[in-house]
Amino acid sequence: MGNTELYDITFIPDQVTVKAAKGETILDIANRAKLHINASCGGEGVCGRCMVELRGGTVEASQGLFLSDEEFQKNLRLACRAKCNGEATIFIPLESRGDASVFKKATHAEEAVKVETLDPTIQQTCLILSPPDQFDNVSDLDRINAALAELGIMDQDIDLGTLRTMPEVLRSSNFKVKVTINYDLPLQDPKANPYRRIVSVSPTEDGNDFYALAVDVGTTSVWARLVNLATGEAYPSVADLNAQISYGEDVISRIVYAGRKDGLKKLQRQVIDTINTLLTRLEEIYPGYRKKTYLMFVSGNTTMSHLLVGVDPKNIRLAPYVPPAAIWPTLRASYLGLEVEPHTVLKIFPSVSSYVGGDIVSGVLASGFYKRSELTLFIDVGTNGEIVIGNEDWMTCAACSAGPAFEGGGVKCGMRAAPGAIENFLYDPDLKKHYLGVIGDGPPTGICGSGLINVVAELFKAGIISKQGRYSEGSSSALRTGEDGVEYLLAPASESGGGHDVVLTEIDIENLIRAKGAMFSGYQTLVEAVGLSMGDLERVIIAGGFGRSLNLENAITIGLLPNLPLERFLYIGNSSLTGATLAALSGTMWLTANDIKKKMTNFELSETPGYMDKYIASQFIPHTDASLFAPLE
Amino acid sequence: MGNTELYDITFIPDQVTVKAAKGETILDIANRAKLHINASCGGEGVCGRCMVELRGGTVEASQGLFLSDEEFQKNLRLACRAKCNGEATIFIPLESRGDASVFKKATHAEEAVKVETLDPTIQQTCLILSPPDQFDNVSDLDRINAALAELGIMDQDIDLGTLRTMPEVLRSSNFKVKVTINYDLPLQDPKANPYRRIVSVSPTEDGNDFYALAVDVGTTSVWARLVNLATGEAYPSVADLNAQISYGEDVISRIVYAGRKDGLKKLQRQVIDTINTLLTRLEEIYPGYRKKTYLMFVSGNTTMSHLLVGVDPKNIRLAPYVPPAAIWPTLRASYLGLEVEPHTVLKIFPSVSSYVGGDIVSGVLASGFYKRSELTLFIDVGTNGEIVIGNEDWMTCAACSAGPAFEGGGVKCGMRAAPGAIENFLYDPDLKKHYLGVIGDGPPTGICGSGLINVVAELFKAGIISKQGRYSEGSSSALRTGEDGVEYLLAPASESGGGHDVVLTEIDIENLIRAKGAMFSGYQTLVEAVGLSMGDLERVIIAGGFGRSLNLENAITIGLLPNLPLERFLYIGNSSLTGATLAALSGTMWLTANDIKKKMTNFELSETPGYMDKYIASQFIPHTDASLFAPLE
Repeated sequence: MGNTELYDITFIPDQVTVKAAKGETILDIANRAKLHINASCGGEGVCGRCMVELRGGTVEASQGLFLSDEEFQKNLRLACRAKCNGEATIFIPLESRGDASVFKKATHAEEAVKVETLDPTIQQTCLILSPPDQFDNVSDLDRINAALAELGIMDQDIDLGTLRTMPEVLRSSNFKVKVTINYDLPLQDPKANPYRRIVSVSPTEDGNDFYALAVDVGTTSVWARLVNLATGEAYPSVADLNAQISYGEDVISRIVYAGRKDGLKKLQRQVIDTINTLLTRLEEIYPGYRKKTYLMFVSGNTTMSHLLVGVDPKNIRLAPYVPPAAIWPTLRASYLGLEVEPHTVLKIFPSVSSYVGGDIVSGVLASGFYKRSELTLFIDVGTNGEIVIGNEDWMTCAACSAGPAFEGGGVKCGMRAAPGAIENFLYDPDLKKHYLGVIGDGPPTGICGSGLINVVAELFKAGIISKQGRYSEGSSSALRTGEDGVEYLLAPASESGGGHDVVLTEIDIENLIRAKGAMFSGYQTLVEAVGLSMGDLERVIIAGGFGRSLNLENAITIGLLPNLPLERFLYIGNSSLTGATLAALSGTMWLTANDIKKKMTNFELSETPGYMDKYIASQFIPHTDASLFAPLE
Repeated sequence: MGNTELYDITFIPDQVTVKAAKGETILDIANRAKLHINASCGGEGVCGRCMVELRGGTVEASQGLFLSDEEFQKNLRLACRAKCNGEATIFIPLESRGDASVFKKATHAEEAVKVETLDPTIQQTCLILSPPDQFDNVSDLDRINAALAELGIMDQDIDLGTLRTMPEVLRSSNFKVKVTINYDLPLQDPKANPYRRIVSVSPTEDGNDFYALAVDVGTTSVWARLVNLATGEAYPSVADLNAQISYGEDVISRIVYAGRKDGLKKLQRQVIDTINTLLTRLEEIYPGYRKKTYLMFVSGNTTMSHLLVGVDPKNIRLAPYVPPAAIWPTLRASYLGLEVEPHTVLKIFPSVSSYVGGDIVSGVLASGFYKRSELTLFIDVGTNGEIVIGNEDWMTCAACSAGPAFEGGGVKCGMRAAPGAIENFLYDPDLKKHYLGVIGDGPPTGICGSGLINVVAELFKAGIISKQGRYSEGSSSALRTGEDGVEYLLAPASESGGGHDVVLTEIDIENLIRAKGAMFSGYQTLVEAVGLSMGDLERVIIAGGFGRSLNLENAITIGLLPNLPLERFLYIGNSSLTGATLAALSGTMWLTANDIKKKMTNFELSETPGYMDKYIASQFIPHTDASLFAPLE
């Protein structure tokens, strides 16, 4: 910094002030202040999501193409383009926030997680050693290893931190100790274990509890939970926004950002910081857990995994989409800057391909369908949608680029599923009136992905939206012509939370149709590739955060989900986190995850004959081929 | 530091000025300035070796018990007791220096090192891969692993740094690469290799050279050399004083220092810094070697090994002398702060016991006697003397505390084998005159260990020193009575380099007799323990720096070495470094080192019946039992 002058930048309504140097962008400054501004495009100035308002002082920013004259005069600026050139007070409106409030409650109770065998890759052994004397003065470690050898436990290494405390522990416990050994593979695995390390020598009276961490690194949010390896109990999770969100909302913009100077390092730092924040929150709930935590299993999509370990993901977005790695070395977690003890070993879920990542492998593990005979469709709906079809005998998978509509992106009044988002929508054809369900029950600010599906489905059923995704003229008094063409007024500015009209444009509908079509033609392609048809699907498993608020009937109505009896659908929540939990509890599960990765055949949809035709045919509500959505009885 | 005032402390004749805070000791300040002042006692103020002269300014220091009135008035101070309280100019006399000049020449040619098989625990494989396309877009790592699997090479991990550069290397070399895999054990070892890691993926045209480092960490000096694993060539070594020397000259004072607040950390830092200095010197000679250096083998005594990895050695000096560890985990060298690439793996030689360390295991490996039938005595003479007796079938070992006389300690005018030290001594009985051989050929400043042996042996042969180690009254005009009793004037102040008389007192002779007696009774005890006698020794191998200048006949004369034909003696130099070199070149040698450790039976001499009697009987020149030193023919 040297003698660079620093200026106070104050963010409201948060009332947080930080020092900034001339030339720093407001986006970067806010990020340093831990206020996460949405920047879908990765700060390229092309998405317009990071709008902020200059309420006082000065920033350096031209109007650019994105801001209207009126907006610019109202002192609205793009945070990614506005640079510090003096003191300033910046208002961050709700719509521009990466809202973390949904994650901020202390813990989240998850579905019960149970493993058949509690066989973590850790072994605890109690040893009663004879204390050394002048006739038997081998080293402390030799003494322990000799006693372990008598039990058939051999050739183990020792963690340096453990070695440092071991002499004192041995003497204070009068040479009665519990030895904890970390393995790479489950003990019963026939292959030699490539990794055997004593990670703890503790007094026998110290209790038998020892822990692992399960972490799901999502593009948007990061989840972590503690797992008790002595009891098999998985504790409620904690979560937070992935701090990388300030450098792009989807994986593509993150990859682009990683290519900038120091971009990769910065993104790695952000996700490590996010995980560290969660580790600190866990410390408040389970004081001292770190000392007894020996394993950390992380699942994430392919890009997130690369960014976590600091490997440039650039080839992921360049044809032919070859990721540097799809399996990861076992690492000392602290080596990456994760704030755990040096004895904590990090294992990262393997990926299948550039766009079918460790989160899907982990999710499939959690779903259990890999061991059942029913033909199953497993989907994770999002900007990057993942699809797996198969059963105990085979599995195929594919990713489809659905675009950001499901996450509220590319939608005029789109926003994340955060307070203020319209999530539910009901249209009363008799009264010609609609009812809004808003997250947090406040006034509506925008519309989130699942809200979008519900609005379009209801308006379609009411005949206000046509099969082609156009508004039927005169079908509703809420229709009007806006700057983007015909639009439906969901809430006027006077009733909204953001001070502007909340509307749904035909372009928004078009984007949704594109997104749902990409998903649907993906299932079709995979089903047909194995000579089956949609009706053969005995189960549809919906994974990921998006499924939580999904109205199945409406999703079928618009053609996002296949028209199957509702009882075949199953929502399994954050299955990526659940899978990581299972691996933490059981080495057998971890081996299974690696088998699942190997078993999955990846399809590049863009290279698969017929996919494009199917995609084009899907650009209707629900579909060009009405028979696909004909009532089943 | 806050607003603590800092003062300039200038050291002369070096003309180095450093800032110091009030209260810092001159010893610590000099150390920061990389000027190593001897402090045999570890800065406890009880050895008086760290005398410096205040030539200007001020320090805070009381006279204490160590300094005479005259010395104190001459502004002499103990560096470990003198504290900064203002600017000061400090002269460090030659006698107080841990003199590194002997090490400063660029490199040291060593004995040729040859292994039977060049089988380092590293494998290089050239792969010609088919570049990915849309139908074959598995990850880069999966592609490499699949090709390796076809060659039967499986289950390897990858170094993260290598993974980071691999995608670029693959593409720039058009998917023709050389893959280097690091193993823990030699490939042909029947046991599964617990460690397999890809440490480099490089273009095939990058050349085949790859390297290892061999390092000997001695209490006094540290040696390092580079080893070319492609050719089997071991390059000349570089060396420097172990910077820990400022915190104690022998292992005991280091252990004591390690027990102080932050002492352990400080000592670890010092030895790591010393090694890093050598690594930097190697960089000047072999630019860029670090990138291609995958292994680092370190041998050192038990205390040095503990300090290197930062494990508190305190139990080494407490009965029953149980070291925390005698084997060490394989570590990433950079984890300890060693300035090598993250892919460089560190392996530390195993120890036998608290006082028979990895340097002796390494030395025995280098000597090769473990595979020969001759009964061999292997010794390393020093403050802590190590003794091994055995052959291909068995080995026993012991350490004896000889005291510092062999290193010039506890001797009035004693000093290290550095310029100014009397090393050779000849007494002409006809002319009743002596001739001095001084290291560096300048005026004599003191007397080093081997010089002491030569002086005592010559004066004994001339009848000036009696069997009891006393001066025979009137036997030489150089005899006089000094403050410590009768003494022999080796050089008057006017001819000396330090401005004071260089003398040999009866106390000095007593100390030497104690030291040689401790060694000799050690051999006797081990030889008798296996039912043999001294005459059965077919070979005597002398290892370590001390042997270099040892006059064998004189050493036999005073009773340090057994009276055997001279051709049975063999001096093998820094065998600890040679052993580390062998291990670097050959995994088989590394396994052998571990076998040697297991094969050695350790004797605690103090607990062995008869040792004390033998020790007492040895307190004559050459020995009470004259028959032990009777001429053989």
